[in-house]
Amino acid sequence: MTSPANASADVAIVVPAAGAGVRLGAGAPKALRLLAGEALLVHAIRRLAAATSTGCLVVAAPTGQESAVRRLIDDRWQVTVVAGGAERRQSVAAALAAVPPAYDIVLVHDAARALTPPSLVESVAAAVRAGHDAVIPVLPVTDTIVRVSPAGQATHLDRSTLRAVQTPQGFRRAVLRVAHDSATATATDDAGLVAQLGVPVHTVPGSAHAFKITDGDDLQYAEALLAGRAGR
Amino acid sequence: MTSPANASADVAIVVPAAGAGVRLGAGAPKALRLLAGEALLVHAIRRLAAATSTGCLVVAAPTGQESAVRRLIDDRWQVTVVAGGAERRQSVAAALAAVPPAYDIVLVHDAARALTPPSLVESVAAAVRAGHDAVIPVLPVTDTIVRVSPAGQATHLDRSTLRAVQTPQGFRRAVLRVAHDSATATATDDAGLVAQLGVPVHTVPGSAHAFKITDGDDLQYAEALLAGRAGR
Repeated sequence: MTSPANASADVAIVVPAAGAGVRLGAGAPKALRLLAGEALLVHAIRRLAAATSTGCLVVAAPTGQESAVRRLIDDRWQVTVVAGGAERRQSVAAALAAVPPAYDIVLVHDAARALTPPSLVESVAAAVRAGHDAVIPVLPVTDTIVRVSPAGQATHLDRSTLRAVQTPQGFRRAVLRVAHDSATATATDDAGLVAQLGVPVHTVPGSAHAFKITDGDDLQYAEALLAGRAGR
Repeated sequence: MTSPANASADVAIVVPAAGAGVRLGAGAPKALRLLAGEALLVHAIRRLAAATSTGCLVVAAPTGQESAVRRLIDDRWQVTVVAGGAERRQSVAAALAAVPPAYDIVLVHDAARALTPPSLVESVAAAVRAGHDAVIPVLPVTDTIVRVSPAGQATHLDRSTLRAVQTPQGFRRAVLRVAHDSATATATDDAGLVAQLGVPVHTVPGSAHAFKITDGDDLQYAEALLAGRAGR
């Protein structure tokens, strides 16, 4: 992360990290689960901070654990820690409120996508700069996907037009704020909220390393990747 | 695998294994790529043969490599090896033609889903026995899924109704044969061909271990899983 005084560091990134993470075992917040001896959140923040576009980082921590989260994070990364909410959406809104007014581009990133490369921050940010109000990184869907009825009957979808959505997702700050203030239906990601406003959502190529670590098998996979890439 | 003389071993399983597998590196057929020192196909066959419902196994090998494939497979598993085709669909049809007439239930399985547990064979077979002409194992979709337009604009789909499809997929033999004989549109799986006939496709819960091994990262993950479960 370069100094916010650097004009090229025009991106604020908010990281909702208050979720309980049932699938990773009861108790600890999922963003604080250890991967190769460090919290997932720390892995994620290190990579976000390494992107030269990143001027500001805000983490929404579990309420009451702000200090503990603060202590995990290297001071050099200049991260602001705020109290998150019970729902992911509340955490994003709380973090967004703490972004300094100077930032017009805001990315939202899942701490569980701990191995996301800095290059993905750059490509999402570049698409927002180029004029897209909402940008999502996507990958082709490798599995066949069906839609199921309540009775368990499956209808095949055309896989060639489907994409799996990752984070960071990038937005014009005003668009993201309005979406969080006004969207009524639930959504599984921020772009889903923005889409409810009728704002077009633009796609850029995602990264195989931006996968979400949600269970013990994912942790094993991530550790194997890190072990195979030591020193990179 | 119990003897076909055993009335409970009423299931034939066909395994198309003739694909070239570009993502796993040029050259070798992807089903023959090594995982922990054994071909993916051998891992897959071992688990299929361990299901007590399995009475017959037919593998479609790359043309000209039938003998090489034959030598990889333990004689105890009583596997028939036939020549496959250039396309997956041709390989399934060739293997299906070699299934003895006594078998009314046919499962189709991807060799690349090499760690699929025998229990998944049983649950798919049980659903066909219970009267469903086409059965697919599915898992919830963990990523947000969008549909993209040619211009790269994304439309969010309702994830709660989506499922990722695995194999083995189970069929009344006649239904699968008619689908292979008559379907005109392309499909990414056999159930997709059957669905074109208007046959309802039933879903059963899939398995996290039935994931498809399509690239080097998947191989690393599979090796980590095997290493963590040695002796099981």
